[in-house]
Amino acid sequence: MSFRTHLESVVNQVEGALGCSVMGFDGISVETHQKEEAAELELNGTWVEYANVLSQLRQAAELLKTGEIQEISVNTESVLTIMRLVSPEYFLVLALRADGNYGKGRYVLRVTAPKILAEL
Amino acid sequence: MSFRTHLESVVNQVEGALGCSVMGFDGISVETHQKEEAAELELNGTWVEYANVLSQLRQAAELLKTGEIQEISVNTESVLTIMRLVSPEYFLVLALRADGNYGKGRYVLRVTAPKILAEL
Repeated sequence: MSFRTHLESVVNQVEGALGCSVMGFDGISVETHQKEEAAELELNGTWVEYANVLSQLRQAAELLKTGEIQEISVNTESVLTIMRLVSPEYFLVLALRADGNYGKGRYVLRVTAPKILAEL
Repeated sequence: MSFRTHLESVVNQVEGALGCSVMGFDGISVETHQKEEAAELELNGTWVEYANVLSQLRQAAELLKTGEIQEISVNTESVLTIMRLVSPEYFLVLALRADGNYGKGRYVLRVTAPKILAEL
């Protein structure tokens, strides 16, 4: 399967999903699938900012000695964002509506990350 | 109720909770309640780092125009951390074991935040 097929699968499985992307920590999107109904949201621009912050959080977690960060979630009033590490260079990011299925989103990213890694 | 009573209540309600704190965005903890079994974890040191990153994420979210960030979660292999805004200056942070009740943690922070705000 291609990246896009995996990303479409994530968006289709999670109720309320707006878009999903494979991104590098340099802020460059490898592949993105965004629902048409979410076209007005500038998801990519925000994810670039989040990638930068994610890098810094990983350093903070190393101080904590609680193990490497696997997942970060950033929730605003209208959009929930879940980011999950795929490799030291790449991560998966999923945006969903505030009333979307958050637990399902976490689960689907967890099982999709190894499939993405296998194709990188 | 004092801050400490609220924090103890959060920790007692959420299965797997390790500690809870009211913190300022300057990284200074107003009040902390940490379970004795979690005494070896340097939670406070990490939360100071997270406070700094949280400030930056809020700026990123303003770019996104999806509304202000309400909640951030940072999950490592062994510890889940949920941070919830209380006011522009303060936030609540809850650490729980990776097998703790994450959904319950989010819920309890959401209902506790206005109680903390009322006493600030």
